[in-house]
Amino acid sequence: MYLEHINSPADLKKLNLEQMTILSSEIRQVLLNELSQYGGHVGPNLGMVEATIALHYVFNSPVDKIVFDVSHQTYVHKLLTGRRDGYINHTVTGFSSPHESPHDFFTLGHTSTAVSLSCGLAKARDLKGEHTNVVAVVGDGALSGGEAFEGLDNAAVLGSNMIIVVNDNQRSIAENHGGVYANFKALRDSNGACECNFFKAFGFDYIYVGEGNDLASLIAAFQKVKDINHPIVVHINTQKGLGFEPAIKDEEDFHYSMPFDLTTGKLKMDMSKVESYSSLTGAYLLDKMKSNPTLIGVSSGTPMVMGFHPAQRQEAGKQFVDVGIAEEHAVAFSSGFAKGGGRPVYGVYSTFIQRSYDQLSQDLCINNNPAVMLVFLSGVYGIPDVTHLGFFDIPLISNIPNMVYLAPTCKEEYFAMLEWAIAQTDHPVSIRVPSNGVIATGKSYDTDYSQLNKFQIAQKGNSLAIVALGTFYQLGESVAKLYKEKTNVDATLINPRYITGIDKDMLDELKKEHDMVITIEDGVLDGGFGEKIARYYGDSDMRVLNFGLKKEFVDRFQVDELMKSNHLTDEQIVADVLAAME
Amino acid sequence: MYLEHINSPADLKKLNLEQMTILSSEIRQVLLNELSQYGGHVGPNLGMVEATIALHYVFNSPVDKIVFDVSHQTYVHKLLTGRRDGYINHTVTGFSSPHESPHDFFTLGHTSTAVSLSCGLAKARDLKGEHTNVVAVVGDGALSGGEAFEGLDNAAVLGSNMIIVVNDNQRSIAENHGGVYANFKALRDSNGACECNFFKAFGFDYIYVGEGNDLASLIAAFQKVKDINHPIVVHINTQKGLGFEPAIKDEEDFHYSMPFDLTTGKLKMDMSKVESYSSLTGAYLLDKMKSNPTLIGVSSGTPMVMGFHPAQRQEAGKQFVDVGIAEEHAVAFSSGFAKGGGRPVYGVYSTFIQRSYDQLSQDLCINNNPAVMLVFLSGVYGIPDVTHLGFFDIPLISNIPNMVYLAPTCKEEYFAMLEWAIAQTDHPVSIRVPSNGVIATGKSYDTDYSQLNKFQIAQKGNSLAIVALGTFYQLGESVAKLYKEKTNVDATLINPRYITGIDKDMLDELKKEHDMVITIEDGVLDGGFGEKIARYYGDSDMRVLNFGLKKEFVDRFQVDELMKSNHLTDEQIVADVLAAME
Repeated sequence: MYLEHINSPADLKKLNLEQMTILSSEIRQVLLNELSQYGGHVGPNLGMVEATIALHYVFNSPVDKIVFDVSHQTYVHKLLTGRRDGYINHTVTGFSSPHESPHDFFTLGHTSTAVSLSCGLAKARDLKGEHTNVVAVVGDGALSGGEAFEGLDNAAVLGSNMIIVVNDNQRSIAENHGGVYANFKALRDSNGACECNFFKAFGFDYIYVGEGNDLASLIAAFQKVKDINHPIVVHINTQKGLGFEPAIKDEEDFHYSMPFDLTTGKLKMDMSKVESYSSLTGAYLLDKMKSNPTLIGVSSGTPMVMGFHPAQRQEAGKQFVDVGIAEEHAVAFSSGFAKGGGRPVYGVYSTFIQRSYDQLSQDLCINNNPAVMLVFLSGVYGIPDVTHLGFFDIPLISNIPNMVYLAPTCKEEYFAMLEWAIAQTDHPVSIRVPSNGVIATGKSYDTDYSQLNKFQIAQKGNSLAIVALGTFYQLGESVAKLYKEKTNVDATLINPRYITGIDKDMLDELKKEHDMVITIEDGVLDGGFGEKIARYYGDSDMRVLNFGLKKEFVDRFQVDELMKSNHLTDEQIVADVLAAME
Repeated sequence: MYLEHINSPADLKKLNLEQMTILSSEIRQVLLNELSQYGGHVGPNLGMVEATIALHYVFNSPVDKIVFDVSHQTYVHKLLTGRRDGYINHTVTGFSSPHESPHDFFTLGHTSTAVSLSCGLAKARDLKGEHTNVVAVVGDGALSGGEAFEGLDNAAVLGSNMIIVVNDNQRSIAENHGGVYANFKALRDSNGACECNFFKAFGFDYIYVGEGNDLASLIAAFQKVKDINHPIVVHINTQKGLGFEPAIKDEEDFHYSMPFDLTTGKLKMDMSKVESYSSLTGAYLLDKMKSNPTLIGVSSGTPMVMGFHPAQRQEAGKQFVDVGIAEEHAVAFSSGFAKGGGRPVYGVYSTFIQRSYDQLSQDLCINNNPAVMLVFLSGVYGIPDVTHLGFFDIPLISNIPNMVYLAPTCKEEYFAMLEWAIAQTDHPVSIRVPSNGVIATGKSYDTDYSQLNKFQIAQKGNSLAIVALGTFYQLGESVAKLYKEKTNVDATLINPRYITGIDKDMLDELKKEHDMVITIEDGVLDGGFGEKIARYYGDSDMRVLNFGLKKEFVDRFQVDELMKSNHLTDEQIVADVLAAME
């Protein structure tokens, strides 16, 4: 075992090629052991084993600075930079983190950022008169995001050392989309020689490594570009999932996987039996498409989250558009499509819609085009990594004029809202898909949401009114129940349904028999939903308490703990209410 | 005069080449008459006269859909599509607007959006089985924004008619920046023949028009691509400012100009004598750079707004970086530069920082790197066009964790804050540069802002506390004065200084001798500063009134009227306060 003796890149540098080849097998074994038990990014890391070894063999990290784009392919990097035990014991994160190691320069998890960040590092180095290497490692779909293109455009004219390793594994998360990938293929097919070269068009020097999983080739290439005095692209052709046949055969499912069987590659838990808003949404939209030839699904590189796996995409045909990882384009495209008379439904993670604020505002909402957007994995039940938090979509989306942002509380209400959103043509409509599992109430819900900002009273009571938004509606029900137990008073329970406005008539009406209104929302309080109600009641006697998340970045949280630390259990909320009533 | 007979593109189609040549002169005359008297986008429109005529001669607008990127070059388009009188009488806007004409498909004003929007139109056309042309007209710097790259990447694989006219006038607003422009030059130098072709690398078909101000060449090119069955780029080489020598000699100042003398090109009002935060900032930073070799200014295509005209840029040398119109990159680059130990100061318009939400959150604030950002032209005194409103930066920026967003009230406080922001290395710091003109108080201000969220009492009183933020601080002073006149009571006046948090100690203290707190802010109330204070006081007896702007898109507003309609005059505020106190 070589890996157990590698506590820093210095130890790696002592190995010869044969030993490093053995090391790469050991690393794959460790990766597969861990990933099959605990899940994680399988394909991206298996594909980058040799490149990561070669980078650390050739360059002098952390004096030379290696910045991994997305950084979901840094498991190998962590194993080689003193975090082997941390990786195996799960005390390190799944992304790069300066808190863990001086070999990491940024906490990052969204794609397409490494070139821009590296440009900054390189410029600072130059002004300080230092002479080290800055290496940005990009790829795995990261070259379809606008920030990456902006970064490339600027990096090319930096005028000093900047090495961009393009990991071309022929994939985004799903298959690659976009014209540039045809050029990548032409480059691969010509062994990097074809005249029309995307990178050279930006002004980069360029070399190609056809055998991107061959240590000797990689080391030779990196040695050639080390200490170069100008920007250069090293285009390496790698095999995503190398070393695990199922991950090669099904690159999409093994981009990120839940725990799986090491022999068959089958998931240990059969997810197909689990009803999810993703699968329900996919089935619903596919059915709708049959009767509406201008209804399309739109994705920005993550079609699965809206239930469009390869089979569904094939069935939808021209009525499903995956634009690749390009959220800005996805929003603007949807706006244009709606303006052209079509009905687009764009499904996106809460964390990734952050990349499209200006497109939501300018391209979509100023134009008031009736595109539909489904926001998945928001709030505390979303992704617990600091780089993928779903806490901010309410401040982001709901303060843009003209947008209608809806918060369904259950399956039936979600589909009632979605049905309306697709049928209407008056507004851009976003729906915050519940993230607390599929809850079916069996009840029927309004089919018309065209009268905006009309809240709904679910239970009429007095003294206390509980306004419980979307995913936290069931928490509101628990609060009402517990409040009754403690006080023998029936609180009023309200499903606000609309995030983008308040029901002034209802709020005025509440003044008659209520002393306190509380709001409960699954997102940061700052700039959120509850503050609008606090503002409205500011000049009245009504007491208002807003429950939600503190404005802070948290990482790898446990939902229960996060809820507790934000006073978001029913016990805490009722206790706070009673204390405030005294 | 041909122009007076052109009420729609149909009238244009009746002209022959010679007549259209005369028409182009007439149009230049009208443009120069109007622009010299009232100001506007000079260079972009002068350069596009022939291309716009040729587009409307060849294509059948609005059945064929022409989408102008940025749309500040649509004056000619407006003159030809039934808005001649509206243009001359100033009843039409300076940007494209579907409210004005069926020949306009989107209200837009930010760059880099046309390709994505046009892709949507084209896809809708295809699914409806229609056969018309979709033409996106881009350029004038718009090809450095990430959304444009994302759009190109996707447009290239659309598989049907899509014509992208690239207006290559060799400029952004300032000079072009980025590697891609070297390729554009190679294409121009080779008459479009050079093998390495940026557009072909994306997968586009491509033709080049060297004489982009020659009607016959343009018409021939557009006729060639009309009804094409796949995406194609028509690269036209135009002269920005053609027909007005001063606009050719000084393309930057004549990109957008205030009223100027038609003979000399000199501004009618000598702006160099007007003290502005732009010029003051430029001078301050230049001076600072001398003693700090790692202090840099960063711009995304608008260096003038932070006082960096060509002379200042030359003086700064390597310590000024204009990344081109690429706001995402500018933020990430600044974060990387700060991480590398440098001190970046990024100056940006409020309206354009909207393009960087995710970079502010992910690349900058999660990493807590000490970049400094100056936000210019925010609020009601910013740009009054609906596409360039500066009302939204408070909800956008201030709800991101770790960010420190400061609101100075005058010149002295601004520079005290800027000095501190550059010196400290603990936080990303943004400063909302006042937009109500340079006000010098002659007073001295705190030099240390490291104890976050400490509000400052400017005048101690009782009963009413006025929290007046940044640009609206002087309005707060007026309110205090008027309140005193009406009630003979001295209100407390507070300069909150920090937008990103509240001073809980002070807010608690206010409870003792105050019944009401009002907040006044120069931005939308939804998600803004005042709501945080309303939330804080929600469970108390304190009355809170928040004054600010309604969440709505407004266009070409008069500041006075907008203030009145939002109850933002001192008279209205005091009246509202007194009414609420009853």
